[in-house]
Amino acid sequence: MMLDNPAAKYRPFTPVDLADRQWPSKRIETPPIWCGVDLRDGNQALIDPMDQERKQRFFDLLVKIGFKQIEVGFPSASQTDFDFVRSLIENDKVPDDVTIQVLTQARPHLIERTFESLKGAKNAIVHVYNATDPVFRRVVFGVSREECIQIAVDATTRIKALMNAAPETHWTFQYSPELFSTTEMDFAREIVEAVMDVYGPTAEQPMIVNLPATVEAATPNVYADQIEWFCRNVKDRERLIVSLHPHNDRGTGVAAAELGLMAGADRVEGCLFGNGERTGNVDIVTLAMNLYTQGVHPGLDFSNITPVMREVEYCNQLPVHPRHPYVGDLVFTAFSGSHQDAIKKGMTERRANPDAVWAVPYLPIDPLDVGRSYEAVIRVNSQSGKGGISYLLEQEHGIELPRRLSIEFSQVVQEVADRTGREITSQMIYQAFADEYLERRAPYSLITHRLASEPDNPKVNLEATIEEKGQRRDISGTGNGPLAAYIKALAAAGHDVEIIDYHEHSRGQGSDAEAIAYVEVRIDGNAVFGVGTDESITSASMKAVMSAINRHVSTDEPAANVTAATLA
Amino acid sequence: MMLDNPAAKYRPFTPVDLADRQWPSKRIETPPIWCGVDLRDGNQALIDPMDQERKQRFFDLLVKIGFKQIEVGFPSASQTDFDFVRSLIENDKVPDDVTIQVLTQARPHLIERTFESLKGAKNAIVHVYNATDPVFRRVVFGVSREECIQIAVDATTRIKALMNAAPETHWTFQYSPELFSTTEMDFAREIVEAVMDVYGPTAEQPMIVNLPATVEAATPNVYADQIEWFCRNVKDRERLIVSLHPHNDRGTGVAAAELGLMAGADRVEGCLFGNGERTGNVDIVTLAMNLYTQGVHPGLDFSNITPVMREVEYCNQLPVHPRHPYVGDLVFTAFSGSHQDAIKKGMTERRANPDAVWAVPYLPIDPLDVGRSYEAVIRVNSQSGKGGISYLLEQEHGIELPRRLSIEFSQVVQEVADRTGREITSQMIYQAFADEYLERRAPYSLITHRLASEPDNPKVNLEATIEEKGQRRDISGTGNGPLAAYIKALAAAGHDVEIIDYHEHSRGQGSDAEAIAYVEVRIDGNAVFGVGTDESITSASMKAVMSAINRHVSTDEPAANVTAATLA
Repeated sequence: MMLDNPAAKYRPFTPVDLADRQWPSKRIETPPIWCGVDLRDGNQALIDPMDQERKQRFFDLLVKIGFKQIEVGFPSASQTDFDFVRSLIENDKVPDDVTIQVLTQARPHLIERTFESLKGAKNAIVHVYNATDPVFRRVVFGVSREECIQIAVDATTRIKALMNAAPETHWTFQYSPELFSTTEMDFAREIVEAVMDVYGPTAEQPMIVNLPATVEAATPNVYADQIEWFCRNVKDRERLIVSLHPHNDRGTGVAAAELGLMAGADRVEGCLFGNGERTGNVDIVTLAMNLYTQGVHPGLDFSNITPVMREVEYCNQLPVHPRHPYVGDLVFTAFSGSHQDAIKKGMTERRANPDAVWAVPYLPIDPLDVGRSYEAVIRVNSQSGKGGISYLLEQEHGIELPRRLSIEFSQVVQEVADRTGREITSQMIYQAFADEYLERRAPYSLITHRLASEPDNPKVNLEATIEEKGQRRDISGTGNGPLAAYIKALAAAGHDVEIIDYHEHSRGQGSDAEAIAYVEVRIDGNAVFGVGTDESITSASMKAVMSAINRHVSTDEPAANVTAATLA
Repeated sequence: MMLDNPAAKYRPFTPVDLADRQWPSKRIETPPIWCGVDLRDGNQALIDPMDQERKQRFFDLLVKIGFKQIEVGFPSASQTDFDFVRSLIENDKVPDDVTIQVLTQARPHLIERTFESLKGAKNAIVHVYNATDPVFRRVVFGVSREECIQIAVDATTRIKALMNAAPETHWTFQYSPELFSTTEMDFAREIVEAVMDVYGPTAEQPMIVNLPATVEAATPNVYADQIEWFCRNVKDRERLIVSLHPHNDRGTGVAAAELGLMAGADRVEGCLFGNGERTGNVDIVTLAMNLYTQGVHPGLDFSNITPVMREVEYCNQLPVHPRHPYVGDLVFTAFSGSHQDAIKKGMTERRANPDAVWAVPYLPIDPLDVGRSYEAVIRVNSQSGKGGISYLLEQEHGIELPRRLSIEFSQVVQEVADRTGREITSQMIYQAFADEYLERRAPYSLITHRLASEPDNPKVNLEATIEEKGQRRDISGTGNGPLAAYIKALAAAGHDVEIIDYHEHSRGQGSDAEAIAYVEVRIDGNAVFGVGTDESITSASMKAVMSAINRHVSTDEPAANVTAATLA
């Protein structure tokens, strides 16, 4: 229940006293140090965390993209993470120029365990945090400011000792005053300086101080003010690498990171496509490509962005939205005629001046630069159309296409769109589906069939009459079920068909109900789909097989010609 | 192919000369005028644009939420839009306190057609635009600055005359210098002032000047600088309602709108959940809820946000991402133990002080305020777990749960999670599925069956032996297919079962392949799911019916007890 007056329950954020802020006149001219935290902050926010195989694939992906710092886990909190860190080190999976980072709470036994996980690492960042936010100090931990500082100082002391005891590793130390953005600025400075006093960073061997917006709580300019305030007020700024770690609770994580970099930060922690707790960590892909479109190379390679998205979707088991900047299925499309016209004129000019600065209307980046293409810029197409076509068939016709069939069918619709040159209606889509699959009743069709099985015998005997190019013929076969028996009967009649995939479901209810069956079969080494409907679940599946056979034999006269002719 | 040196192809944005900018010290203390453009800018970017029914539903939704200005279409460009505007007016669908807005290009015959569509409207905004961006002037339209201004002036003259000719409507005039954010600032001011000179707005009857970031091309502070520059430099600022229209190509549309409001704008055009061309228009839901969490009521009602999301997903046929701020399935979840612990302590304190300012760790808003709940804040649950559980069963076990069954099953898993108090593994999920559905073989089971059908007769005769509470019994029935015959046979034996929904598909390939069937049946007025597997597609479906019957009769001893006991 939203309150009529939310002012009693919610307070505005506390502004930073920084009237002479400099960041609004700045511009980002070099890329920050990127640290990918997908395997830690991203992973811990997944419904089902990654297993070792997915973690390794994600790590390899981050390396391939060009990340030089990768947070690989929270080994003291999770045996899976511990094992993964060990596996990386023992199997020599970390390139020499890549530094792995692990997170730990500021507690003695967890710190010990963290160093156990890192034994033998070439380069490692030990990232320790404690909560400095006043709500956490009071409600969660019940500590005073002094006690809070003591926790950080004790942890730093212990970490420093453990680092000194393992000189074979090149160590970097990172401290996060947790929930920095909702901590009092003077206290954030005080605790960081206390940690610096113990650790003793130098300009040559700086430490990382990470300033997280663990929960995004204000407009992004406030985070920038906080970063600038911190950079200007902390002592020995040159001995620190100031790192940002924005979340996206208010939908402004990318802006917070950009303004934070303008405010003086050196480094950004984030995830690919903005995975992470709740609304996600800041999206490093968008940050990187935003730099790229301003002429600054981000040092990360997204030149073939679609496979990156697919790999991340596989590892995270979460989708990337079709409108996600630079990568979503719809971001290089223009549906309106005036947009298409403008793009066409821009493209024409560009062909005449290929070395000019990029200036094509409505396309902030050349899609080719991320491995995408202009082809997407039409009304219905094999990529953008997939979801819409399947959705329409399901919502309006009760047809639930199996995934591979929906991809195949989208190409049929695409061809109809191209040939007819007009907008594709829902009715046209259904008609194309019927023409392409359901009405494929020649040259082969099932006229009638008869099933018989015996008790205590799982085998089904089937006798059927089929029509072959106008001639009737009786066939018979036995199998573990009616469909298997039918396949056997067809084989005996010279039709070698193997079922690769089979789906069937009901459409409608009660007396109107019928079954619709989809088969993917292998014929002559080709995979072919067929679809059949019938009141009987077995007849529907047999009709589906016949549809596939008919589609296969008619490939000499391509299906799309037939379809387009029907619609024209 | 990303370029090694993108500086040759891409140029940084042009900054605004505004060293004494005031907006970074401002804060948003009142909500802007909201204008929802889902039915125009959102709709034109859909794979399949909304039909009349979907448009009407979306319009009604926007009214219910509290929008007082709604852009309903581009009637001169689309017959569908024209018809929809007429339908709204003729069927009296627009409340008296709501103003509809329509877009038109600055061309005489399109303006005439626009006014035809609005005949009889009570309140209407006529929104005219022309392209002022230098690339458009040169490449797309081939016009000089002067010619560009003349287009805007001519259109305004004609619109003013048509307004005067139809005094029964309360008119508002809106002009957009299109691609404002990539137009030279001095030219944007010049063309707006030329339009003002013709139209003659007053402080009492102001006109709207809309300043779109049609393509987001810079960090959001630059847009704010542009807005502040415009507000400070345009003449007669008090005669204008300055409107923002940000897009999200760089992922910072929300930030651009917020900083733009701080810079002096009065109004925001955007879409629910950020639908719109390419990466979308700015998301008004996030903007509104961001205000709310700062104690400012946005004047829009999202107190039950999930149905709003579902309705928008229905109309747009596009998903809202699980991490979308304030509404995504995952945004009120915390998976990590330390987060859960902190939230628990925060909730406990809140119960003791229910009137205090909201300060629960990791939850920037009370989920109850948007009709959500705290229950989501656990590892596997009925809401967030849905996708993950289904995904795992599909990826690792080839089981493709129908949607309603996946919702039911997630509650089974939830209960296992609650009882065992530990993380749910993939194997535990499969075991719970097998226990709950596949292994339901008592008190009723199918022992054996026999099918028979005759040529030229679609009917199938089935004879079967079933076991009822340990006793064997022969049953028989006839139907349009094997499953229908089985249902008839069961009915004759006193088991009234009606098939509501049926899905079946293959698992595995070749000799390992088997079918898995899912049925939703009605028994004693209750809907019950059952699942069966078999090499035969018919046997699998019959077993699924038996699974449903057994689950129904065992509801006295709840299934979850059985499941948890098995897993414990």
